[in-house]
Amino acid sequence: MIFDPRPIGVFDSGIGGLTVLRELLLAFPYETFIYLGDTARLPYGSKSGNTVRKYSEQNLKFLLSRNVKAIVVACNTASTQINEDFYEGLPVYNVIDPGSHLAALTTKNNNVGILATRATVKANSYEQKIKMQNPLINVFSVPCPLFVSLAEEGWHDDVITEQVAERYLSDLKNKNIDTVVLACTHYPLLKKPIQKVLGPSVNLIDSGVAISLILKIDFEKEKVKRTDQKNAPDQLLICLTDTGLQFENLSTQLLADHTKSKIIFETVSVI
Amino acid sequence: MIFDPRPIGVFDSGIGGLTVLRELLLAFPYETFIYLGDTARLPYGSKSGNTVRKYSEQNLKFLLSRNVKAIVVACNTASTQINEDFYEGLPVYNVIDPGSHLAALTTKNNNVGILATRATVKANSYEQKIKMQNPLINVFSVPCPLFVSLAEEGWHDDVITEQVAERYLSDLKNKNIDTVVLACTHYPLLKKPIQKVLGPSVNLIDSGVAISLILKIDFEKEKVKRTDQKNAPDQLLICLTDTGLQFENLSTQLLADHTKSKIIFETVSVI
Repeated sequence: MIFDPRPIGVFDSGIGGLTVLRELLLAFPYETFIYLGDTARLPYGSKSGNTVRKYSEQNLKFLLSRNVKAIVVACNTASTQINEDFYEGLPVYNVIDPGSHLAALTTKNNNVGILATRATVKANSYEQKIKMQNPLINVFSVPCPLFVSLAEEGWHDDVITEQVAERYLSDLKNKNIDTVVLACTHYPLLKKPIQKVLGPSVNLIDSGVAISLILKIDFEKEKVKRTDQKNAPDQLLICLTDTGLQFENLSTQLLADHTKSKIIFETVSVI
Repeated sequence: MIFDPRPIGVFDSGIGGLTVLRELLLAFPYETFIYLGDTARLPYGSKSGNTVRKYSEQNLKFLLSRNVKAIVVACNTASTQINEDFYEGLPVYNVIDPGSHLAALTTKNNNVGILATRATVKANSYEQKIKMQNPLINVFSVPCPLFVSLAEEGWHDDVITEQVAERYLSDLKNKNIDTVVLACTHYPLLKKPIQKVLGPSVNLIDSGVAISLILKIDFEKEKVKRTDQKNAPDQLLICLTDTGLQFENLSTQLLADHTKSKIIFETVSVI
């Protein structure tokens, strides 16, 4: 077996992708990760497709320059623009294919809800990809733009967040859905109020879990080679395009339970 | 009297500055305005001082290239970074000096509240400038980051917005304040719920009104020369760094009652 000690690159506009990184750290504790948060230009969810594509390509290029072995686009809005399998020969994973796949496998009654940013809903990628898996599945998409700010404000298990969820999801509750994709990487932070509003029988699909399952398969197929490390890496590098203690504190808080590595922050330019 | 038919440039990261533009259009109906919304990089309120300064300087340069006679920085966060009186010989107005001045003139009991983004609160410019007017004034600053998303979501007169305001402002209500500066240009859109929570006796200072008063004085002093037009200009040009119908619709909605000019949109690059 051939090993590959190079890191896996992960990017998002800001903190959302950390929910993906958390799941990756749990699933692959011996792998090294480099995270890029494009905090100087966040959020992506309210911007146009062209702008998001331009930003995402700059992020890919940056991670390529850091000698990664694969790249995870840990942002749904960016994933609507980057759906290549390879970039300059490197495997690239978006979060939409795994999420769609897992949703299609999970639903029993063929009614699936998609909660996402306005840009992701507009791009319509989830509906297309779920219907490619099974054209009989009904897909109901709901833009929930305030969820991002509520997640960033730290109001994760909160009565106000619950009321916002109640308003956004009231129509969806009448559609007899049994599976809902949290199709923005911020939204897993609001799992509790979302689950409370939708009821305990609805399955919530988390992009981080879905991408970890796919990556596990690709490690087995050796599409991406494992590291031969026997211990968790010493460092977890988080690169940010803007400075700011708030993001550093949030990252440390979100990742502390999921990694033994020392978290190192670096301010970078991707332009 | 010498006249100057050139337009006045106004910029903000997104829609917030339109509340300033509205007041300017009401106060100076014969003047021509060019508005720049840096929608490709909004919002500024969560970004670092250095990043906001870089973006703001690019915006100033862009407006200069459009042959304006004066520039209004219609964003409080950008105003914390751009406090020059002149840029390449052109008069530049930020919104913090006028807002601080008007707050110091308005308070009777010398207790003033500042509602702002995290970046503006951190920069502490309002407190410094109000204390320069009158060192006896007590200033209480409150970051209200969710207000921006609530304003952009259009929940301007809404029970959820009221609850968010209730949470952010509960401490401030115990400070016996009689004057509050809406120190983010988005916040005037939420005037109703903010006033409801603070009570009818509290004076709310709107940056757009404050800057219009100062500009009126400077027109009289001929620091900026008036146009000699006798009619409202034919066109109001809104330049955006990203495309997106949502911003165009919101702009039209916010400005329709305040101008007779035809609103024209143009996508531009400022980099």
